[in-house]
Amino acid sequence: MKKLINDVSNVLSESLSGFVSAHADILILGDEQKFVRRKFLKPGKVALLSGGGSGHEPLHAGFVGHGMLDAACPGQVFTSPTPDQMIAASEAVDTGAGILFIVKNYEGDVMNFDMAREMSDRAIETVITDDDVAVENSLYTTGRRGVAGTLVVEKVVGAAAEQGAALGVLKALGDKVNRATRSMGVALTSCTVPAAGKPTFAIGDTEMEVGVGIHGEPGRRRVALERADVIVEEMVAAIAGDLGQKGDALLFINGFGGTPAMELYLMYNAAEKQLAKHGIRSKRALVGNYVTSLDMAGCSITVTLLDDEIVKGWDSPVHTPALRWAL
Amino acid sequence: MKKLINDVSNVLSESLSGFVSAHADILILGDEQKFVRRKFLKPGKVALLSGGGSGHEPLHAGFVGHGMLDAACPGQVFTSPTPDQMIAASEAVDTGAGILFIVKNYEGDVMNFDMAREMSDRAIETVITDDDVAVENSLYTTGRRGVAGTLVVEKVVGAAAEQGAALGVLKALGDKVNRATRSMGVALTSCTVPAAGKPTFAIGDTEMEVGVGIHGEPGRRRVALERADVIVEEMVAAIAGDLGQKGDALLFINGFGGTPAMELYLMYNAAEKQLAKHGIRSKRALVGNYVTSLDMAGCSITVTLLDDEIVKGWDSPVHTPALRWAL
Repeated sequence: MKKLINDVSNVLSESLSGFVSAHADILILGDEQKFVRRKFLKPGKVALLSGGGSGHEPLHAGFVGHGMLDAACPGQVFTSPTPDQMIAASEAVDTGAGILFIVKNYEGDVMNFDMAREMSDRAIETVITDDDVAVENSLYTTGRRGVAGTLVVEKVVGAAAEQGAALGVLKALGDKVNRATRSMGVALTSCTVPAAGKPTFAIGDTEMEVGVGIHGEPGRRRVALERADVIVEEMVAAIAGDLGQKGDALLFINGFGGTPAMELYLMYNAAEKQLAKHGIRSKRALVGNYVTSLDMAGCSITVTLLDDEIVKGWDSPVHTPALRWAL
Repeated sequence: MKKLINDVSNVLSESLSGFVSAHADILILGDEQKFVRRKFLKPGKVALLSGGGSGHEPLHAGFVGHGMLDAACPGQVFTSPTPDQMIAASEAVDTGAGILFIVKNYEGDVMNFDMAREMSDRAIETVITDDDVAVENSLYTTGRRGVAGTLVVEKVVGAAAEQGAALGVLKALGDKVNRATRSMGVALTSCTVPAAGKPTFAIGDTEMEVGVGIHGEPGRRRVALERADVIVEEMVAAIAGDLGQKGDALLFINGFGGTPAMELYLMYNAAEKQLAKHGIRSKRALVGNYVTSLDMAGCSITVTLLDDEIVKGWDSPVHTPALRWAL
């Protein structure tokens, strides 16, 4: 294992310290590093709270700030955060308008966020994301996995929360964005969890894993590496077929951590053309490493069908470590 | 070689097509893909033009837009762009106030930008960046190499150009920012150039290259992989020793493409502490993959000593594909 670390047991802690120090204008680290929260809360605004296993950076802590999340709870690498983290974060960021949990569909995450909600006496709703069309059930998952589309849910719901939408409205909007969103991934290499010290899965020098999960979970099939156009054709067909609608879309090419920008933009080029064949036009774009799997090479394609409400939320100002733009 | 590509001869072309399509709100691709330019020019503003070999994305084309570059000329991977590219770009973006070339110190780049300047009858000045303290001369380089500090020069000079500074003033500012900036890198793996199809250099499973260049050029020494704190101590000592001054600084941890955010923030944490021992306080931070070497694992540390003019330029609004913020 070749990593820039000191001690495997301190990787998350040291990384969080650096993260919050680098973004001290926006963020505060909670006691015992239980959560990362916005420095400045907005009274009367519904608080958005997410979290999950670490190793997917910048998801979720990189999306804390104006226009997205109020707090994120980082678990150990590929391990759910514990309910006491979500409770501590809830107490820190609830200003009285209630809390929306945004949770990727993995059994550990769903269970721990549910437990936190049950233990709390605050008004809490939950949006579960499950945008990955690759497989139905999976390791760690009953039903579809929540992957890169979670970013889109957090962005669009975050914008509405900033503008004062009520808890029930935000819950419905989050569910709607999730339903409008589909993703699928492909891996060329495995990731390596620091504490494990070796690759999560073995893969040959000329193979790829089609439909891989963001923890290196198996996808649909292990096949010989193909040309980008062929890979994209299969991924886009799965996504478009599952969406079952034509229209304008956000096309999001998400790097898993080990694939350079040059390849991600090449994949964007291929995906945009393939989507057009299915009657889906890319009207908004995002390309980069946003929902990663440590150092895994590969990427996912996410498509969100746009309506006026979703476009407005996507385009709204955002000021977080990893997504930042103004009108 | 495992890459998401179609044909090695089309990687750059397809990637540029995707890049400009994804950022069509900001950018236009020049004829024959000779350059990427701003969609909207600002009459009377000095034009900033950079470029270099591809494979370092988002540098340089990712920094074209309001507050940074007016155009960037992409060469083939790790190969200088040709003078006709710079001439075509100059003609496209010069609005009469002259052009500033920002060029990383590699023999091919310097020669080709010089040739373009000589062949042009426009008012052109050149800033050469040479921030890498690792080695004096190198493969491809007489004198020090220009690396990640180039981003800082482009950002600060870009802000001043946006505010109407004249060509001579911008040239002097660029030279000043370069003099205030030092970098050093470390690689854990090699990069793989698509056309070569194999790693640029061989490195053992437990080795690192201290002082590596952004094309995988040799650095100071090949040694056993160490703890992050030990690596950072050596890099920061080299940077701080060469700067020879205390003060406030921008601390920029730049990923080479294959190293995840979790490790980059851990390196930020370590570097901030080490800098403090040398009397340098991190007052501005940038962490991420900005000046990459394809899929190389590793990172560089860049430190720019701040004065009021440099802070003002750094903090000014910017709207490019890879750096985007408002006041």
